[in-house]
Amino acid sequence: MRILDTKSFSVSGFKAWGIHCGIKKIDKKDLAIIYSDREAVVAGVFTKNRVKAASVLLDMTRVKSGKGQAIVANSGCANACTGKRGFADARATAEIAARELGIKPDAVYVASTGVIGEFLPMSKVATGISTAVGLLSATGWEQAAEAIKTTDIYPKLAVVQEEIDGKTITVAGIAKGSGMIHPNMATLLCFIVTDANISAAMLRKALLTSTNKSFNTITVDGDTSTNDMIICMANGAAGNKRPAPGSTGSKKFQACIDAIAIILAKQVVRDGEGATKFVEIELRNAKTPQDAERAAMTVAKSSLVKTALFGEDANWGRIMAALGYSGAEMDEAKTDIYVGKTKLVEKGLGQGKAAERDAGIALKQREVKIIIDLHKGKATATVWTCDLSYEYVKINAAYRS
Amino acid sequence: MRILDTKSFSVSGFKAWGIHCGIKKIDKKDLAIIYSDREAVVAGVFTKNRVKAASVLLDMTRVKSGKGQAIVANSGCANACTGKRGFADARATAEIAARELGIKPDAVYVASTGVIGEFLPMSKVATGISTAVGLLSATGWEQAAEAIKTTDIYPKLAVVQEEIDGKTITVAGIAKGSGMIHPNMATLLCFIVTDANISAAMLRKALLTSTNKSFNTITVDGDTSTNDMIICMANGAAGNKRPAPGSTGSKKFQACIDAIAIILAKQVVRDGEGATKFVEIELRNAKTPQDAERAAMTVAKSSLVKTALFGEDANWGRIMAALGYSGAEMDEAKTDIYVGKTKLVEKGLGQGKAAERDAGIALKQREVKIIIDLHKGKATATVWTCDLSYEYVKINAAYRS
Repeated sequence: MRILDTKSFSVSGFKAWGIHCGIKKIDKKDLAIIYSDREAVVAGVFTKNRVKAASVLLDMTRVKSGKGQAIVANSGCANACTGKRGFADARATAEIAARELGIKPDAVYVASTGVIGEFLPMSKVATGISTAVGLLSATGWEQAAEAIKTTDIYPKLAVVQEEIDGKTITVAGIAKGSGMIHPNMATLLCFIVTDANISAAMLRKALLTSTNKSFNTITVDGDTSTNDMIICMANGAAGNKRPAPGSTGSKKFQACIDAIAIILAKQVVRDGEGATKFVEIELRNAKTPQDAERAAMTVAKSSLVKTALFGEDANWGRIMAALGYSGAEMDEAKTDIYVGKTKLVEKGLGQGKAAERDAGIALKQREVKIIIDLHKGKATATVWTCDLSYEYVKINAAYRS
Repeated sequence: MRILDTKSFSVSGFKAWGIHCGIKKIDKKDLAIIYSDREAVVAGVFTKNRVKAASVLLDMTRVKSGKGQAIVANSGCANACTGKRGFADARATAEIAARELGIKPDAVYVASTGVIGEFLPMSKVATGISTAVGLLSATGWEQAAEAIKTTDIYPKLAVVQEEIDGKTITVAGIAKGSGMIHPNMATLLCFIVTDANISAAMLRKALLTSTNKSFNTITVDGDTSTNDMIICMANGAAGNKRPAPGSTGSKKFQACIDAIAIILAKQVVRDGEGATKFVEIELRNAKTPQDAERAAMTVAKSSLVKTALFGEDANWGRIMAALGYSGAEMDEAKTDIYVGKTKLVEKGLGQGKAAERDAGIALKQREVKIIIDLHKGKATATVWTCDLSYEYVKINAAYRS
């Protein structure tokens, strides 16, 4: 597998573009279209929030067919908490796109992100779809990635290539994140496309597996959004033979989806609202996998831990306190904590001023690694988080104004 | 019951004081002593964090006797995550105080708050105890309340009086809070004293009941501390006959403990780190009491809701999203949300610009009330929280420096 370091790529049979159609008041892109020139197999993962945006409700029914051909995504308006009118608007969005693209409405998926409780300006959306369809380009992914941003600072893209059955297949993805980032899932939109020829069942399995290794291991603020989704489309244009379950081809394909999901998930955390640091928390030797996840995620979510990270303060007591209330089996007197390569805590006790100083240096970096060893069993978990800065408060206090 | 609006009060048979002994680097009070001139019945509530400070471990064994006569509390050092040496220090603190006061070590309770992972400077503590004992005063409660503060801005005191069995009984309390404030319990220290004559069993029951109505319904940052405790002492100096279970006297006593706990809990939220607003969230008509609590607490903890409150933005979509991921049974299309007296959301839908404007005015006040009606059953819950401001980040990024 080759990770391509470019934003200007193409995936056979796919086109994309993004424009400003006026959903956002300021002149920033707010509408993206992704289109496959042939029917693709489709898999999706959706928010577990009980309050689901119209787009989520619509796509959850569409994805049962395992098929599709286009995605229309807008930013600036979540079209969530908008009742029957909101659902009708989501449906209408798909119908307008289907007409413009000359495909069936059922083949169009819809995604939205932005302010909750407001209606989509449908005439702007209609004009925007028409314009965007006219501009669709095989290399229009950066424009599409721009158009799904909300408070994101930079667009998120990733692309990899692999050989399967003697053919080169390409897997690419775009994502947006920033706030309400928390597993299951986040205000996260992610669209992954590939020209691989793959069964719907294998695509679904690959997406679920990779989501658990990527987007479900990240947290920015602990809030789970109403609008999150990952849609994955495989159109078969690469012409490979469909890999059989368990085959080398299927493993290679899984590795590609994993890579795209992990690269994008890390980008989402790096670009978390107000984030100044990317923090990896590795939880070792928990009693059960559930304990490992719970403990790692509780530390990753703690406002006190996150503000200490922002302050570059090796305040390990807050990590210990978070472990203590995480619900995971733990014993203070067995717990070790490392920051970077420094063992800051051994068997529950601080290792003195020199260790604090070394840990303090590690905390000044933009990428921080914290290892927690509970010495309670063999389960491990890794989560990615960011610090909590003034900027997070500023962005979220002013978001709608 | 009369709520007395004074910081200069006395409770028969009790004395208190607070001094600076050098645990805090800056010249602020850091050691408090509370003393009863006769043996008192004692009840306690302690943190549910698995990581417990030495003081918590010690007091949890002491309180089994249901008896005691003094409390030594320090701020500036939590004496948590300090292992055997920390436990020995807590024990020694009680022994020193017992010697100075001429009582048994078992009758002395110890409490600490401050930085985790550091050892108590025992020679300073010893000198401090000796000095403080010499200064003990019947009206020294404000000094004691000052001495248990960490990042608290103001000292927290409350006092009420009631007639039981023809005698005037006084119930008073001091508390500290500010950060790591979350049920079960918080970096919260609270000491309640009364001259009522009451059984240990009734005192225990009264304290548990009132804790659930007060300190367990508040959240500042969702972090549960290692050091929290409420200790309640009743020395019987008022000379009333012990009220029987279920009697008018016992109900009056419960009301007094409730009042003190609620007043102090509200003060803790008002003085939450960086808080600019006190926010009451009333959750109505949930399916079960657990659902009511869960839904109210999830909204109260959401960083996105709390930053919107700081920004005085009636961004109800974030409330709806939090309800959706709270785990409580809810149906967006049945949910109403009020801010102040304004119905902002009816059956899941925003009520337009005028409602938003009115809600915006209510959000500009220092005290904000949010009512959420799930229309799913009959259970209710109320929680108190505060907003999330730049100041919270600032305080916690810099706490140890």
